Amino acid sequence: MSSTAGQVIRCKAAVAWEAGKPLVMEEVDVAPPQAMEVRVKILFTSLCHTDVYFWEAKGQTPLFPRIFGHEAGGIVESVGEGVTDLEPGDHVLPVFTGECKECRHCKSEESNMCDLLRINTDRGVMLNDGKSRFSIRGQPIYHFVGTSTFSEYTVVHVGCLAKINPAAPLDKVCVLSCGISTGLGATLNVAKPKKGSSVAIFGLGAVGLAAAEGARISGASRIIGVDLNANRFDEAKKFGVTEFVNPKDHDKPVHEVIAEMTNGGVDRSVECTGSVSAMISAFECVHDGWGVAVLVGVPNKDDAFKTHPMNVLNERTLKGTFLRKLQAAL
Amino acid sequence: MSSTAGQVIRCKAAVAWEAGKPLVMEEVDVAPPQAMEVRVKILFTSLCHTDVYFWEAKGQTPLFPRIFGHEAGGIVESVGEGVTDLEPGDHVLPVFTGECKECRHCKSEESNMCDLLRINTDRGVMLNDGKSRFSIRGQPIYHFVGTSTFSEYTVVHVGCLAKINPAAPLDKVCVLSCGISTGLGATLNVAKPKKGSSVAIFGLGAVGLAAAEGARISGASRIIGVDLNANRFDEAKKFGVTEFVNPKDHDKPVHEVIAEMTNGGVDRSVECTGSVSAMISAFECVHDGWGVAVLVGVPNKDDAFKTHPMNVLNERTLKGTFLRKLQAAL
Repeated sequence: MSSTAGQVIRCKAAVAWEAGKPLVMEEVDVAPPQAMEVRVKILFTSLCHTDVYFWEAKGQTPLFPRIFGHEAGGIVESVGEGVTDLEPGDHVLPVFTGECKECRHCKSEESNMCDLLRINTDRGVMLNDGKSRFSIRGQPIYHFVGTSTFSEYTVVHVGCLAKINPAAPLDKVCVLSCGISTGLGATLNVAKPKKGSSVAIFGLGAVGLAAAEGARISGASRIIGVDLNANRFDEAKKFGVTEFVNPKDHDKPVHEVIAEMTNGGVDRSVECTGSVSAMISAFECVHDGWGVAVLVGVPNKDDAFKTHPMNVLNERTLKGTFLRKLQAAL
Repeated sequence: MSSTAGQVIRCKAAVAWEAGKPLVMEEVDVAPPQAMEVRVKILFTSLCHTDVYFWEAKGQTPLFPRIFGHEAGGIVESVGEGVTDLEPGDHVLPVFTGECKECRHCKSEESNMCDLLRINTDRGVMLNDGKSRFSIRGQPIYHFVGTSTFSEYTVVHVGCLAKINPAAPLDKVCVLSCGISTGLGATLNVAKPKKGSSVAIFGLGAVGLAAAEGARISGASRIIGVDLNANRFDEAKKFGVTEFVNPKDHDKPVHEVIAEMTNGGVDRSVECTGSVSAMISAFECVHDGWGVAVLVGVPNKDDAFKTHPMNVLNERTLKGTFLRKLQAAL
C-alpha cells in the first residue's frame, strides 16, 4: 500500500483552460480512485493529433478547462474498491477504448466498442459519480477520453488500462497506447491483407507507419504510401513502404493514379489522416470485386463521406475501426 | 444437330426502338453463334426492374433499338466453335454476370465481376466481333447485358449461361436467372447473418423477398421488412419477414425507427430498392461495432451515397454486390 493511497495527491499537470490557448503547467489535486478506478503515476506521455484536435475544438464540443493526453505509460499508485485485475506497482498503458468485459460489444468477436467504456469525447467526468477527479483550488478540471495523461497522476477506469510486462521500457511502449496499436490493428485485424497483396496507406504519420508495418508483417508485396509531405517517404521505407504517391505531383485524382499503378486498384487500403477527401480516395482506390478500405482517421464534425453508390455495388467494402483490438495487437 | 444450326433464324422479338416508348413485336433475324457463343431458344422470360430502368434510359446511356430481357429460361439450339460445356438440348438460364473462369476475378474467392463478362450496360454488341447477332432487314438491333431474352432466340456468350437440371420447370426457375439469386445470394453469401441475429430488408419486391428468404434460411430471429407499399407485407410473411416498417408511418428517419426497435440497430441489412436514400438508411440502421449493410439495388447515374464518416468509424461495414454467386446460390 503506497503512503499516498486514499489521499488527494497534489502534482503537476498541463491544463488547457481554453480552446486553442497554450496549456498551462498547474498544481492540480488528484482525488483517490473510487470503485473500479485506478490512480496511475504517469511516467511518459506522447502527443497524439487527437489531443490537438480536441484542444483546437474547431467544430467539436468544447469542454474546458481540461487535461488532455491519452497515449502514455505509467505505474499503478493505488486502486479503488472492486479492482482485482491490477495492484499498486503494476505497469500499465491507458486505453481510451476500454472493455467492461460484460456488454454485447465486449462479448462480440467483431466489436471493441464497449457500451460502457467506448470513447466518448464529450464526457469530461468519471462514470462512477459523474464527477472529475481533478481540481485546482476546488474548481473541477475535466478529464479527456477517460485518460488525461498530461498529468503526473491521473485516475482511470480499470477497464481502460492494459497491464504490461514491467520489463518493457515505458518511455518507448507508451506509443502502443494509441497510435501504433491503431495503425497495426487496423491492418492486421480489420484490413487483413493476404500474402503477396497490394496495400495503400494514406498518411505516413505514426498511425500510418504502424499500418504499413502491419502490411509488411502480413506479407504484402506492394505497400504504397500516400502523403502530401515527401519528407516522410525515407522514414516510411523502414516500415515496409515500397512506393510513394504524393498527390501534389499529379493532376489527376489519387485514386486514379493508384488504379493505374496497380491494374485497377489495390487489394486493401488504410486511411490514417482524418481528411475526408483522403477517406473517399482510400475507398475509391481499392479494386472492384474484392477491395477493402479501412478508415482509421478521425473526421471533422461536419464532414460527409460521399461516393457514387456504383463504387459500392462494384463489390468494394468499406469498414471503419477505432483502436481495433489493442489488447490483441499487444 | 438441329436443322437450324448455322442458319439465320427469323423469329419474333419485342424491340425497344426508343427510350420509354412501347416495345414493338417484330420479326428479327438471329445470326448463328460464333466462337464461344451459344444460340438459345427462350421459352420463358420475366420482366425485371433493371429492364425498365434501361428502357426508360433516364440518366443512363441510351442505346436503341435494343432487345431487353435478362431473366429467362431456355434450351440450347446450337453452339459456336470452341463451346464444350453445352450442347443442343441443354436447359439453361442466362446470367448477365458471366464467368470466363480465367481472370483474376473468376479465380478470386471474393469476386464474381469477371473481367471479360461482367455486366456492361453500355455495350450492345457481342464481344467476339463487336457486332450484334440481331437484325431487322439488315439493320442491327443492340443486345442488352449479353442476354436479350425478349426474343424467341438469342445469342449469349457460353460464360453467361448456367446449365440446369432439365427436370426443373423453366416457367418457374427463370426467376433464378436474376432476381432470386441476387437477393438470396446477397444475404447468404455477402451479409451472412448469424443464427438468432436481426436483419432489415429494404424493398419487398422479388429481390427483397429472396433476400428475406436468405435471412430465414440463415436462422435470423428478427427479419424487418421496409417498404413504402403496405400491400406487400402479407406476402412477405411467407418469406420469413417478422416485422414491418413503412417509412410513411413515421416522422423520424427510418434508421432511427429501426435503431429504437433493435436496441441500437440491426446486425445486417440488405438494400434491394436502388433508391439512394434507402441505401443510406440501410447503412445507418446497422448496429455499430459489428453491423454489415449490403447494397444490391442499382442506383441512378447521378446518385451520391453520403454519410458522416463517423458512421463508418463506428465499426460499421458497407458492401455491395452484383448477382453474387448465382452458381453458388443455385
